[in-house]
Amino acid sequence: MTNITKRKRIMLTVAYDGTAYSGFQIQSHAPTIERELNRCLSELFKEEIRVTGGSRTDAGVHALCNVAVFDTSARMPAEKMSYALNQRLPEDIRIRKSEEVAEGFHPRHCDTRKTYEYRIISSSFPIPTKRLYAHYTYLPLDVDRMRRAAEWLVGEHDFKSFCSAGSQVETTVRTIYDLEVLQEQEEEILLRITGNGFLYNMVRIIAGTLIEVGRGRWEPEYIREILEAKNREKAGPTAPACGLMLVNYCYCSPSH
Amino acid sequence: MTNITKRKRIMLTVAYDGTAYSGFQIQSHAPTIERELNRCLSELFKEEIRVTGGSRTDAGVHALCNVAVFDTSARMPAEKMSYALNQRLPEDIRIRKSEEVAEGFHPRHCDTRKTYEYRIISSSFPIPTKRLYAHYTYLPLDVDRMRRAAEWLVGEHDFKSFCSAGSQVETTVRTIYDLEVLQEQEEEILLRITGNGFLYNMVRIIAGTLIEVGRGRWEPEYIREILEAKNREKAGPTAPACGLMLVNYCYCSPSH
Repeated sequence: MTNITKRKRIMLTVAYDGTAYSGFQIQSHAPTIERELNRCLSELFKEEIRVTGGSRTDAGVHALCNVAVFDTSARMPAEKMSYALNQRLPEDIRIRKSEEVAEGFHPRHCDTRKTYEYRIISSSFPIPTKRLYAHYTYLPLDVDRMRRAAEWLVGEHDFKSFCSAGSQVETTVRTIYDLEVLQEQEEEILLRITGNGFLYNMVRIIAGTLIEVGRGRWEPEYIREILEAKNREKAGPTAPACGLMLVNYCYCSPSH
Repeated sequence: MTNITKRKRIMLTVAYDGTAYSGFQIQSHAPTIERELNRCLSELFKEEIRVTGGSRTDAGVHALCNVAVFDTSARMPAEKMSYALNQRLPEDIRIRKSEEVAEGFHPRHCDTRKTYEYRIISSSFPIPTKRLYAHYTYLPLDVDRMRRAAEWLVGEHDFKSFCSAGSQVETTVRTIYDLEVLQEQEEEILLRITGNGFLYNMVRIIAGTLIEVGRGRWEPEYIREILEAKNREKAGPTAPACGLMLVNYCYCSPSH
């Protein structure tokens, strides 16, 4: 009697409200998205499971579609796993999709295209129902100036000035395909940024820098100087985590 | 030496996230918006203050602009009170505006025009970052059918079928000036309803009824029968509180 079950690799598409979590990646003694996924998967399949995350978002950052990959020998069809997991997960984490991928697929060793949104409320008082999902400022912001500044960031650049210390990467060159500055509502500005990868805190530093331009402290053209300086101190502050959401994550190569 | 200070009546415009509260109106042993306002005003002015609310929203219902009125002999200029109060209030309650109104002004004894929004997410999985501010259904909804149903509700009608038991009102006749059904995003439907007043749970029962039409259980024309029946049991279920937000509250008469 053979007891060998073929192991398969599963990719989950995960949405979450990051408010209550210390980020995606597992940490001892702190609630994280990864810990919740590992716990629910291990309970469900009665074997120890550890996921590999796609984007290791920071504490308080939200996601509509992060990814996580794991191996299992469970017989449950891949596409049913999302429903079974959603029964066990807390309501601030939801699996949108579960699917089988190629054996060797690794979510961070592939060409990807990610889109982040950064939401800003600019009004004379904060809006309570948006406080967990947007950064509030009482400063009036000039959207046209922010748009002109954003143009300097599109394309392939060395984004060293837009990377927090403590990051260990081979190169700080990245490509931004698109950076929109949208006036969503009277008091709401949305930055939507798509790129092939982002450095540590890069989107939040871009948001903090565009806010400095929007409020009139810097001219839009100053972005060029910041890029050329390759010095984090030249850019604006890191805008708060709550305004940030990973909204799209796609794999360019058909490797899975 | 005279110690008489003229008392003035102040109107506050209040925004709140209702998630953590048992509604607007004061209750013993439960957190309410009114209790927080009374507490902060009494601390600030060092006299016991009790506000009179405009719309007594239910537990879990949100507001962008409810109103509350109180009397004080404090010398602080009315327009500065909002800033002083916001320093003391929890971050899920914010005063947008504070202004002096006429001595006899009562926020519920005037002609008003209120607008509520009811937000629905219709998708195959719930969106974690919207779970506190929208009602989720996995049922696909046909927006055109909901629009045709909504047309029957606009105008002056007896809304007895759309009023929960336990309400004590002289008449159940109300006027709906406008009822829009908006496809906000692919997965998001927004009902925006403006009227001269709303019965107990009226907006939530309208939302629950339009969902029944949208999912195909009832024809749009059935709304007419529901109105004519003057019977709560004929209408759809009361949709959950979290989807509801009071977004506009205006006084028609220049009484203040």
